[in-house]
Amino acid sequence: MVTRKQRRKKNGGSRCNVASRRSTAETPPKVVDGQGLNPITRGTMSSTRFRKDKEIIAEYETQVKEIRNQLVEQFKCLEQQSESRIQLLQDLQEFFRRKAEIELEYSRSLEKLAERFSSKIRSSREHQQFKKDQHLLSSVNCWYLLLNQTRRESRDHATLSDIYTNNVIVRLAQISEDVIRLFKKSKDIGIQMHEELVKVTNELYTVMKTYHMYHTESISAESKLKDAEKQEEKQFSKSGDLNVNLLRHEDRQPRRSSVRKIEKMKEKRQAKYSENKLKCTKARNDYLLNLAATNAVVAKYYIHDVSDMIDCCDLGYHASLARTLRTYLSAEYNLETSRHEGLDILENAVDNLDSRSDKHKIMDMHNQVFCPPMRFEYLPHMGDEVCQVSAQQPVQTELLMRYHQLQSRLATLKIENEEVRKTLDATMQTLQDMLTVEDFDVSDAFQHSRSTESIKSVASETYMSKLNIAKRRANQQETEMFYFSKFKEYLNGSNLIIKLQAKHDLLKQTLGEGERAECGTTRGRRNARARIQVLP
Amino acid sequence: MVTRKQRRKKNGGSRCNVASRRSTAETPPKVVDGQGLNPITRGTMSSTRFRKDKEIIAEYETQVKEIRNQLVEQFKCLEQQSESRIQLLQDLQEFFRRKAEIELEYSRSLEKLAERFSSKIRSSREHQQFKKDQHLLSSVNCWYLLLNQTRRESRDHATLSDIYTNNVIVRLAQISEDVIRLFKKSKDIGIQMHEELVKVTNELYTVMKTYHMYHTESISAESKLKDAEKQEEKQFSKSGDLNVNLLRHEDRQPRRSSVRKIEKMKEKRQAKYSENKLKCTKARNDYLLNLAATNAVVAKYYIHDVSDMIDCCDLGYHASLARTLRTYLSAEYNLETSRHEGLDILENAVDNLDSRSDKHKIMDMHNQVFCPPMRFEYLPHMGDEVCQVSAQQPVQTELLMRYHQLQSRLATLKIENEEVRKTLDATMQTLQDMLTVEDFDVSDAFQHSRSTESIKSVASETYMSKLNIAKRRANQQETEMFYFSKFKEYLNGSNLIIKLQAKHDLLKQTLGEGERAECGTTRGRRNARARIQVLP
Repeated sequence: MVTRKQRRKKNGGSRCNVASRRSTAETPPKVVDGQGLNPITRGTMSSTRFRKDKEIIAEYETQVKEIRNQLVEQFKCLEQQSESRIQLLQDLQEFFRRKAEIELEYSRSLEKLAERFSSKIRSSREHQQFKKDQHLLSSVNCWYLLLNQTRRESRDHATLSDIYTNNVIVRLAQISEDVIRLFKKSKDIGIQMHEELVKVTNELYTVMKTYHMYHTESISAESKLKDAEKQEEKQFSKSGDLNVNLLRHEDRQPRRSSVRKIEKMKEKRQAKYSENKLKCTKARNDYLLNLAATNAVVAKYYIHDVSDMIDCCDLGYHASLARTLRTYLSAEYNLETSRHEGLDILENAVDNLDSRSDKHKIMDMHNQVFCPPMRFEYLPHMGDEVCQVSAQQPVQTELLMRYHQLQSRLATLKIENEEVRKTLDATMQTLQDMLTVEDFDVSDAFQHSRSTESIKSVASETYMSKLNIAKRRANQQETEMFYFSKFKEYLNGSNLIIKLQAKHDLLKQTLGEGERAECGTTRGRRNARARIQVLP
Repeated sequence: MVTRKQRRKKNGGSRCNVASRRSTAETPPKVVDGQGLNPITRGTMSSTRFRKDKEIIAEYETQVKEIRNQLVEQFKCLEQQSESRIQLLQDLQEFFRRKAEIELEYSRSLEKLAERFSSKIRSSREHQQFKKDQHLLSSVNCWYLLLNQTRRESRDHATLSDIYTNNVIVRLAQISEDVIRLFKKSKDIGIQMHEELVKVTNELYTVMKTYHMYHTESISAESKLKDAEKQEEKQFSKSGDLNVNLLRHEDRQPRRSSVRKIEKMKEKRQAKYSENKLKCTKARNDYLLNLAATNAVVAKYYIHDVSDMIDCCDLGYHASLARTLRTYLSAEYNLETSRHEGLDILENAVDNLDSRSDKHKIMDMHNQVFCPPMRFEYLPHMGDEVCQVSAQQPVQTELLMRYHQLQSRLATLKIENEEVRKTLDATMQTLQDMLTVEDFDVSDAFQHSRSTESIKSVASETYMSKLNIAKRRANQQETEMFYFSKFKEYLNGSNLIIKLQAKHDLLKQTLGEGERAECGTTRGRRNARARIQVLP
């Protein structure tokens, strides 16, 4: 996170904020409750108006009282913040406690669901056979993986529940403890800060009173001095009159002594005044210096210290809460990854759904049922030594005619059946298009920008509206019926063709062989058999 | 999917498989139940052995019976497959019905959970304030988003449940219908195929019997012809004797008529034999041609037709099942995406957990409590016109001395406090390291390669073992205590420094001003105030 230096830097930012807040409020500055006057105005007034001690002290005390009220309120605010946090942490604990229960219930339901079908599968004979024979059909494989995925989800949600209970909630309880402890410690720090403020304001009060005292004494000494000066002046004006009447000698002696007396008093008062003035100057200087110090301490408190106190309260709160929530997020993201892996396995199995491969597996499993039987062999009767089609005269002409008839019949049949096949292919294509229409994307149902109400209707309209389904299915079954009728037609045609073709081929070979009968029967016969075996 | 052409191509592949299966079993070919003999051996035997009609017919019938048994078994196998499918589809429907319930329960529990805390928040005054003031704390924001995420999950699982019930299950029911309907239709096709097989084998039976009949007749005609030839030979040898006794004239006449009679009979028998032999040749030819046709039809059935029949049964099954499972996958993947989006929003909020910003929000919210108070102003007593530090003699020397004392005291204090600050920074760094340790990765708990039992123990050992927690917390609190004691020390030091600095700065300014007092008091005074206000 941030070092203290960085924090200081950042606090610099906060200081600016506070400063700017103050500067915007400069004319006039925010007045807390109508009390207090603009210091500038006050300053101006002070130069025109005499203020007595009591007024000044009252104003000072109002100002200090305001600060003390703020300090009390600041503690209340911190306490309230801590209480809010503890409440939030309690809510979070309660939330995760209940969510852990929900996850566990969910996990158990999924486990039960998977187990119900798994035990059924385990007890079935088919399963044993699949296992043994490795003839697992692709559709059955999907079903097994669906159950695996359910078990996986069950396990993952149980893990989630476990992490909530034994990690997240424990962390939250610890943060609660931390909040309480740190609030107490921060309050201690705050009390120390407040004591410092009380101390400096008390000091300010003391030096202000001292200044007032010495200033009062200074004023009084000054006025006494002025009195003495007035008396002296009076005496001087008398002595002026005296000089006019200088002849009255008997009067001179007492007059000189009174002048001296006045002079002495004036000197004394002058000394007293100077002394008091110096004391007052020193007191004023002390007052001004303490005023600067007090303002510096108060400013520091409001700009730095109160922020530091809140930092002490906050110490680690956000970091610990973040770590707790990251634990929750880590669990949720991992659950998601695991779920995704499982779904990918299942998706792969769906991609591998293969009717052809399944067909071969079934035919392999029931090998004896689908294995082509032995060919029907020519069984010569009572040692008949002729074992191939005879094309000597007189049957040759007839066979040749039959061969040509077969040839032309086959040509016609093949053209006709090819037409049927084309229709069949087109129909199958239409069917395949219907059967593989990509109608499985349900992402619209998970659009959270829409309201919950509209989602369901959208989902049902788009994908599975009853009207749509009925239409599609009717269309599909109609095409299917047409396909089957065409398939029967094609089957009949191709059966006829295969029979005629077999006869045609045998005749062709026989007649060809007859032409080159001199090449030797044995070889010819062998060729004939080989060719028949290659036939489809 | 695949067109019929492609399918044919693929079936070509399957044909090869079956062919290869046959070829591997060529010596000897698989014999179904000990009946039937190797046709090659049999062929060899037939050339050495006479076979009677009954033997041949019995062998033929055995072979046909085998085929018919296979056909029956093939239907049974198809029926069994369809039943397995219907069972699987029923299981899937039952599975999704129950899973829909589980998802709905889960959704409702989450909804209730979120609502419980949301209603609490709505009713709280704080929330109103947050809403109004846009002063939402980053920690509270996380809590609100956690509830949002819970609501989102609730909604998504409800949608999942809805898709299972109104889409997946409906599709599965339709596939069940399709399986039943297609099995019936395919069986119809199969029956047609089987009828064709019965027809060709019956035809083969007929032509075989005809061949047997004509061959029998041919043999009998041949033997009769041979009889006649023997008689003729006998007659010829008698007529040789006759030539020796040519003189016995009276004997010649009756002998010539018996020769002619034998000749006539031989001719008749020759004609009969030729006729029968031709009939036999034609019958054998027909038999051989039908044999080829039958074998072609049987081969076609086993290699193509039975496969086509299964294809008819399968028509769309895999595609429809795939689409159903893809609907399920689409729902699950979309749920996952939505969940992930929600978690990302929450993670972003966790990233934005910010103590400084929260502190400022709190201070802004309680503006009156944290707003710095007005500065303490100099309040002149009873119209005192001096309002700044006086540095005239006789206090000048004293102030200057005091200034120098402050200067050296401050230098020492600052060095000392800087040391305390360094310790404080280092301690904070240690604390921050403890508070931001990345201990929140729980991915180990979701490793599915391990057994379920070991997962929990791993999770609790690594992250939240009681010993580890206790150690870490003790360590943290110790560091925290040290930090607080150092912080108090630093606070005391800095408070003293700020006070002395304020006095020092004011003295410096005053003494500097004293030196250039001739510049005019008004300007100096104004500067002084400005400088004081800039002070921290």
